[in-house]
Amino acid sequence: MTLPRTRSDELFLRATKVVPGGIYGHLAPAGGLPKVFPHYAESAEGCRFRDVDGNDWLDFMCGYGAILLGHRDSEIEEAAELQRRDGAVLNQPTARMVELAEAMVERIDFAEWAVFAKNGSDVTTWATRVAREHTERRFVLKARGAYHGVDAWCDPGFGGRIPEDRDFVDEFKWNDLDELRDLAKEHEDDVAAIVLTPYHHAAFGPSEMPADGFWLGVQELCRDKGIILVLDDVRAGSRLHEGGSHRLFGFTPDIACYSKALGNGYAISACVGREDLRRGARDVFLTGSCWNDAVAMTVAIKCLDLARKRNVVDKLNTLGVRLSKGLRDAGAKHGFSFSLTGPPAMPFPWFDGDGNLYLLQKFCELCALEGVFFHPHHNWFLCGAHEETTIDQAVNAASVAFSKLIAKHD
Amino acid sequence: MTLPRTRSDELFLRATKVVPGGIYGHLAPAGGLPKVFPHYAESAEGCRFRDVDGNDWLDFMCGYGAILLGHRDSEIEEAAELQRRDGAVLNQPTARMVELAEAMVERIDFAEWAVFAKNGSDVTTWATRVAREHTERRFVLKARGAYHGVDAWCDPGFGGRIPEDRDFVDEFKWNDLDELRDLAKEHEDDVAAIVLTPYHHAAFGPSEMPADGFWLGVQELCRDKGIILVLDDVRAGSRLHEGGSHRLFGFTPDIACYSKALGNGYAISACVGREDLRRGARDVFLTGSCWNDAVAMTVAIKCLDLARKRNVVDKLNTLGVRLSKGLRDAGAKHGFSFSLTGPPAMPFPWFDGDGNLYLLQKFCELCALEGVFFHPHHNWFLCGAHEETTIDQAVNAASVAFSKLIAKHD
Repeated sequence: MTLPRTRSDELFLRATKVVPGGIYGHLAPAGGLPKVFPHYAESAEGCRFRDVDGNDWLDFMCGYGAILLGHRDSEIEEAAELQRRDGAVLNQPTARMVELAEAMVERIDFAEWAVFAKNGSDVTTWATRVAREHTERRFVLKARGAYHGVDAWCDPGFGGRIPEDRDFVDEFKWNDLDELRDLAKEHEDDVAAIVLTPYHHAAFGPSEMPADGFWLGVQELCRDKGIILVLDDVRAGSRLHEGGSHRLFGFTPDIACYSKALGNGYAISACVGREDLRRGARDVFLTGSCWNDAVAMTVAIKCLDLARKRNVVDKLNTLGVRLSKGLRDAGAKHGFSFSLTGPPAMPFPWFDGDGNLYLLQKFCELCALEGVFFHPHHNWFLCGAHEETTIDQAVNAASVAFSKLIAKHD
Repeated sequence: MTLPRTRSDELFLRATKVVPGGIYGHLAPAGGLPKVFPHYAESAEGCRFRDVDGNDWLDFMCGYGAILLGHRDSEIEEAAELQRRDGAVLNQPTARMVELAEAMVERIDFAEWAVFAKNGSDVTTWATRVAREHTERRFVLKARGAYHGVDAWCDPGFGGRIPEDRDFVDEFKWNDLDELRDLAKEHEDDVAAIVLTPYHHAAFGPSEMPADGFWLGVQELCRDKGIILVLDDVRAGSRLHEGGSHRLFGFTPDIACYSKALGNGYAISACVGREDLRRGARDVFLTGSCWNDAVAMTVAIKCLDLARKRNVVDKLNTLGVRLSKGLRDAGAKHGFSFSLTGPPAMPFPWFDGDGNLYLLQKFCELCALEGVFFHPHHNWFLCGAHEETTIDQAVNAASVAFSKLIAKHD
């Protein structure tokens, strides 16, 4: 069985002529992705999208996290349109920039200032530079396999780097406080920053939550050694806690970076920090042609407000727990030890013993045939447009998939 | 005399509490800017904008170049709205990405492929990495004082850098072929790329056009030594030549970067390259959460089409020549040796002998009082919404400014 994809293939063939690899980055058609996955999308609404061949999908990627409230949320689009009538990119910022900075500082407990850019990478890289400026040190420590953006100090690719790009970057195993402390010792008085995601959400493997005491240990090490603790909340921000994901795990970073969910599909990123980093933040150059975009800032303000008003964090968690339980039970019924790892609002699926992801890929392919878009090697995302009924629809589709998977597996 | 700016000051005061420095980057209230310049804008339409205190301005910055056709161009906004109904940031690219890549490859003579991002910096930095990947060399050569973005290898700030950030970057004086050749010799077989803007448009000084033979010399050196010639056309692209600014100066780069004018206020950037760089381009990681944004891509396609249909390059040049002549004559009438340097479509103003920019700053302040937004230390930008009447209005305002400047100057 398969799905219509003539137009998708036709577009991809055209693309390979004018785009290196046809599609690049996290959207690239990678090995292990279900062959029935479309290459090109046509439209989206709420928690559903349609591909260019007219196939309809129940969406569990939500623009890889960029969509928090749902595609084309009407209140978001109304706010955007109102601002659009005045303009977006002008010669000066608008009042929206001040209002958004105030909103971030109000919501995030340790934040005394905020700046805005377009990409997650813009702010994660800038944050390491602010840490270097503040500490007058060189090293950045990060968890092995963690994604922090496209820049040469951290990107997951293999090309276009010289060894010197990472001369002052060192890595430790997520949750391994001893290895982290050893690195801090090895580079004594020369570690500017430790950059971490709130939990470990690497691709191609189950998500790892922080071990008991991990975050407090990291925080203590940073305070003790004068290291700046940079929280990369680009992927998880707005989904785990309204006040920033550190609140869920009970620690306090010095700087935090946000993007994805902040703009509900309008490109914007933000970096916030503690008071004592204000001078460093002021002294590290930061700008972009469209970074004062008043429409994206209007949307971000509205998105923060709506997320609070609609209690989106709780909703996603509740729905995520329902999805997790539903899928686990459905899997068990068919003899599979299947679970969702990581936070329920953005889970990574896992079959016990499926180290090479074979079962997961087959499962996602079978779900795709039922119209459910489950990604086999990237964490999924729930959004505010999901409801109990859509979760149940996904679980039912997964049951069918599990039942077919038995046949394949046997 | 002054202008109302209560609200502007009030917003800036609020901003200083929640944003380091209040406003950062190229929009920051810098020393030497007219004190009557507003800190915050309210709205814009065509070639005019209104600040938050209700002052109306004739705009000669056009979002620092991001606005090519005019603020809120109706055909652009219609196209954007049509796409917006389908969605912007989905789980896959849309057909718009293929169409835009095809449009770029069709228009730019040497281009065989294109990729898209959000910021100019995204693509200038990535281009240097593609050059490194392709050549397996390390050094990047650039012109002293040239702006290529916010990344540590090239940013114009002073903070957040370690000396090692520029270990493999070397600089030469714009137009100085001998110095460039010496650098290539010094780093023999280790120069990956020469990155240059089509002409030298540094801030705080007159623009410098390429000297006779400069570009051919650069091109010859690159071909001879196997160095990748990267054209940073982020600021000038779409304003000097429909097919890329290299066409105006008669050379052929290997890679070119575009942004600003490409999206008429919707954030998008592009990088295009020759066929033999396709493998390198494919192998250097490139992605961003909102880089498949179908609205920005739709706008870019429409913007390229409208610019061609409306013959915007010719129009801006003609209007720029009119502005240049008008201002020069008006200045001369009042005893000033004033001229516009650089291309007429994006000129940098200059008073002979005004090395410290004193006259220029006073002149721009006096023009501001007449409602004309002339920047005293960044090149100006014309847009498609300017007309002969608006140019003449600006010249008349400048005449008043020149007449008052005499009094101040004497």
